Amino acid sequence: MNKARNFWGWGNIEDISNPNEVDLLRSLVTNTFSVEGSLMPYPNIDDIVLPENSLKIPNALESISTDSKYERALHTRGRSFIDVTRSLSGDFASAPDFVIYPENENDILFAMDWCAERNCALVPFGGGSSVVGGLELKLGERERFEGVVSLDLGKMNSMLELDKTSRTGQFQGGMLGPKIEDDLRRNGLTLRHFPQSFEFSSLGGWIATRAGGHFATGITHIDDLVESIQVVSPIGIYETRSLPASGAGPDPNRLFMGSEGSLGVITSAWMRLQDRPIYKVSYSALFDSFKSGVDAARELVQSGLAPSNCRLLDPLEAFINGAGNGAKAVLIVGFESGDHSVEHLERRSIEIVKQNGGEISGKKEGETWKSSFIRAPYIRDTLIRLGVIAETFETAVKWNKFDEFHNAIIDNVTKGIEKVAEGKGLVTCRLTHLYPDGSAPYFTVLAKARPGSEISQWMEIKELASQTILDNGGTITHHHAVGRDHQKWYKSEIPEHIYKGFEALKHHFDPHGILNPGAVINL
Amino acid sequence: MNKARNFWGWGNIEDISNPNEVDLLRSLVTNTFSVEGSLMPYPNIDDIVLPENSLKIPNALESISTDSKYERALHTRGRSFIDVTRSLSGDFASAPDFVIYPENENDILFAMDWCAERNCALVPFGGGSSVVGGLELKLGERERFEGVVSLDLGKMNSMLELDKTSRTGQFQGGMLGPKIEDDLRRNGLTLRHFPQSFEFSSLGGWIATRAGGHFATGITHIDDLVESIQVVSPIGIYETRSLPASGAGPDPNRLFMGSEGSLGVITSAWMRLQDRPIYKVSYSALFDSFKSGVDAARELVQSGLAPSNCRLLDPLEAFINGAGNGAKAVLIVGFESGDHSVEHLERRSIEIVKQNGGEISGKKEGETWKSSFIRAPYIRDTLIRLGVIAETFETAVKWNKFDEFHNAIIDNVTKGIEKVAEGKGLVTCRLTHLYPDGSAPYFTVLAKARPGSEISQWMEIKELASQTILDNGGTITHHHAVGRDHQKWYKSEIPEHIYKGFEALKHHFDPHGILNPGAVINL
Repeated sequence: MNKARNFWGWGNIEDISNPNEVDLLRSLVTNTFSVEGSLMPYPNIDDIVLPENSLKIPNALESISTDSKYERALHTRGRSFIDVTRSLSGDFASAPDFVIYPENENDILFAMDWCAERNCALVPFGGGSSVVGGLELKLGERERFEGVVSLDLGKMNSMLELDKTSRTGQFQGGMLGPKIEDDLRRNGLTLRHFPQSFEFSSLGGWIATRAGGHFATGITHIDDLVESIQVVSPIGIYETRSLPASGAGPDPNRLFMGSEGSLGVITSAWMRLQDRPIYKVSYSALFDSFKSGVDAARELVQSGLAPSNCRLLDPLEAFINGAGNGAKAVLIVGFESGDHSVEHLERRSIEIVKQNGGEISGKKEGETWKSSFIRAPYIRDTLIRLGVIAETFETAVKWNKFDEFHNAIIDNVTKGIEKVAEGKGLVTCRLTHLYPDGSAPYFTVLAKARPGSEISQWMEIKELASQTILDNGGTITHHHAVGRDHQKWYKSEIPEHIYKGFEALKHHFDPHGILNPGAVINL
Repeated sequence: MNKARNFWGWGNIEDISNPNEVDLLRSLVTNTFSVEGSLMPYPNIDDIVLPENSLKIPNALESISTDSKYERALHTRGRSFIDVTRSLSGDFASAPDFVIYPENENDILFAMDWCAERNCALVPFGGGSSVVGGLELKLGERERFEGVVSLDLGKMNSMLELDKTSRTGQFQGGMLGPKIEDDLRRNGLTLRHFPQSFEFSSLGGWIATRAGGHFATGITHIDDLVESIQVVSPIGIYETRSLPASGAGPDPNRLFMGSEGSLGVITSAWMRLQDRPIYKVSYSALFDSFKSGVDAARELVQSGLAPSNCRLLDPLEAFINGAGNGAKAVLIVGFESGDHSVEHLERRSIEIVKQNGGEISGKKEGETWKSSFIRAPYIRDTLIRLGVIAETFETAVKWNKFDEFHNAIIDNVTKGIEKVAEGKGLVTCRLTHLYPDGSAPYFTVLAKARPGSEISQWMEIKELASQTILDNGGTITHHHAVGRDHQKWYKSEIPEHIYKGFEALKHHFDPHGILNPGAVINL
């Protein structure tokens, strides 16, 4: 029935690249990055070595826990470039001692009690798609604990209630994207939240990490779709009130959005739903320069037209994605509605695009973004196996700082590639989300890897990129979250007094400090 | 230059009701509520008695402080029905000892240090328009302190920077609505935030209380207009990063939104601005029943048309406001844009209105709501002086609960009026804000007052109304805030574990507990 999840890389093992895709990618990278291009084999579960568990499953948790080799390997870490590189090399030294699959809130509370008593770290696990070190204790952190247990919400994956009048539904935190949409499709509704990790990330994970969906403007962040949450913390089980809006005190839901499992586990949520879109239009436009595309994007989002899609690709990124000839930037614009025609919006948007020098290059009904968008992480894994450093980073920055910001990133990352990969590499940019006051630029780095040094090569580039982001007015993350990888820059981004306020919250909700230690709030 | 502010009631003393308005209101209330209708005189500053200050202004604060009788009276409390009733009766026993007008963040930090050392309560004061007891320590709270000082941000009232590219501006927390809009009008921009208290409430106050603007859908809450804030707490001065969006940890700005001065004073903020609207359309429609109007409103907001205005008045409320004959509910719908024509949106909205039984009754360009909306609190004060209990309460509730909720409120408040005012009174309802998942109903109560018992009469109705709100799935406040008046119900609305989390934040940011003690987080 279900496809088998890949324990060393993205997604399902049967969906990793087929020979045709591998050949296509090989021809690209051997030319561009002078890599040899042989495909690194991936490990078999029988061949890898896991450390002996320092904890045995207690009797009381036996019926909902497992310490099988496959499950421990699968839950060892997230799926960033570094994660996949380490897994491909067979390094599973940080595997959890065992994995709990709770069936309800009481199971979770019991597991927390058990961990607190024995000083064990408990790492909440939704879909396992973290790309920021959200799931693996750092060296040094682990030593503080008697052991590490993974808490996989995968069995808490049902829609609990549907309220068609208010267009809201209550869903368990362990539901992955496809199941949510399947359950809603039958009712003519949609949550309409499509992060790139859609197939392998969970509702609870989206809320805990403040996920961003595919849509460029309007309601695209999970934050705005949440009516209420149920949370289990070591101090208890509790639930916020399900409301369309409230001005009563600081928003209780927003305390947990972005807490990344460090304050509690989000076990269910009432979510705002929408009618399925019926009216859809989409077109693309070419710009002679990235800058004129940026101006068009800014004017479009400031117009209040609220396109569902408005994604700008720089010339190189467009070329790699099979759009454009490598000399022009490409803007993809879409509108959709479940109620009314959107053609008047499209017409006005085309005026704005043309006024900024855009040339309409393609027009279509509907959308085709989903399959290639969802496919991208599989391609990343194949590039890694072909000897390429393949990773992305993302941020958000105000429009008035954009040009300088973008130039600084491209310059500094290019210098980094020069240094660590002798210039055999490239960095591209797209704008994934637009706001009236700024945008979310998303950068892709591809560079020649030196076998055995891939991680240190990438770390050097990442360090440069992150410092450049902070120095030029950006945020360390727009939607990938903080995890452990961004901790250092996160701490320099927010005021120390506020960081220490979050520490006070951590002490309150998780007094023994067992929940996802080191993520976001590093006590 | 500036009009003199009224120390006992709403707004400016020269704008209180003129004889014509008084006559009109008198004719209404003598018939409806059998009140005698003589106009209670209002106190003169020379006639009232203030308690002797228990604190003298220290030398170090002398240049920015005052303890004049007028200033102490003006800063005694907010402007709810209870507040105005007490002030009209000459009760200023809770006047602050003195008032500080800081000129910068360091002044505020110094004042906080001074108060912490002497165990004095410090009450931040923006425009002074609280209607929930946000500005006056309760009996019993005050005794814990050596004295009470009011911190009026009125001299921190400048626009600091304007960034037209990102359409953002940095404003000081003490700016009142009109000054913000005046400064922006010159630049073709608007903050477009119009709470009913617009003339007498401040940016810092809006953010601290999560204010709601006049517009019914879309961006109408101050929460969504904030990019970053600067805060002064007893532990220091700090500022969040100015960003269009971020997914880095829990949103640091949202900790302070809704904290009502209990965690710190918001001294400036970067705010998201908009182009001034050029295209405006508006119409009204009549419905045979409130229920069919509610259905139309729900369908309109779920359509995604995002009307700027969509306000539903029940038949009685419409009648009192000079719209309709008392038998029909009135829906007022408007659209506006600074970029493009909105007529296609209006056309589709009219289809929805008609499908739900609405009859289009008036159509106009532009808008006329502002003057009567802004005038309402002055009329409230005159009604009080004519011997009428005149107060409002507001909430938000999901659509699936609406009918039952609305019936319960009307029934229970009607019973309350029966009990405390022998049935000489009425309760009306309007929907002020609409969401795809629910609405914000706003109730007005008018009833015959028994001189000397007005406050206990109202308290009995308020208790009934609030309990009914909580019992039927509403929130104790949609945009009026918690203050002290809603504290009890607020505590029953949010989970205890989260409330205690806010207490942990309070301990962190305000370790001596001197900031607005008893508001929201009641330590």
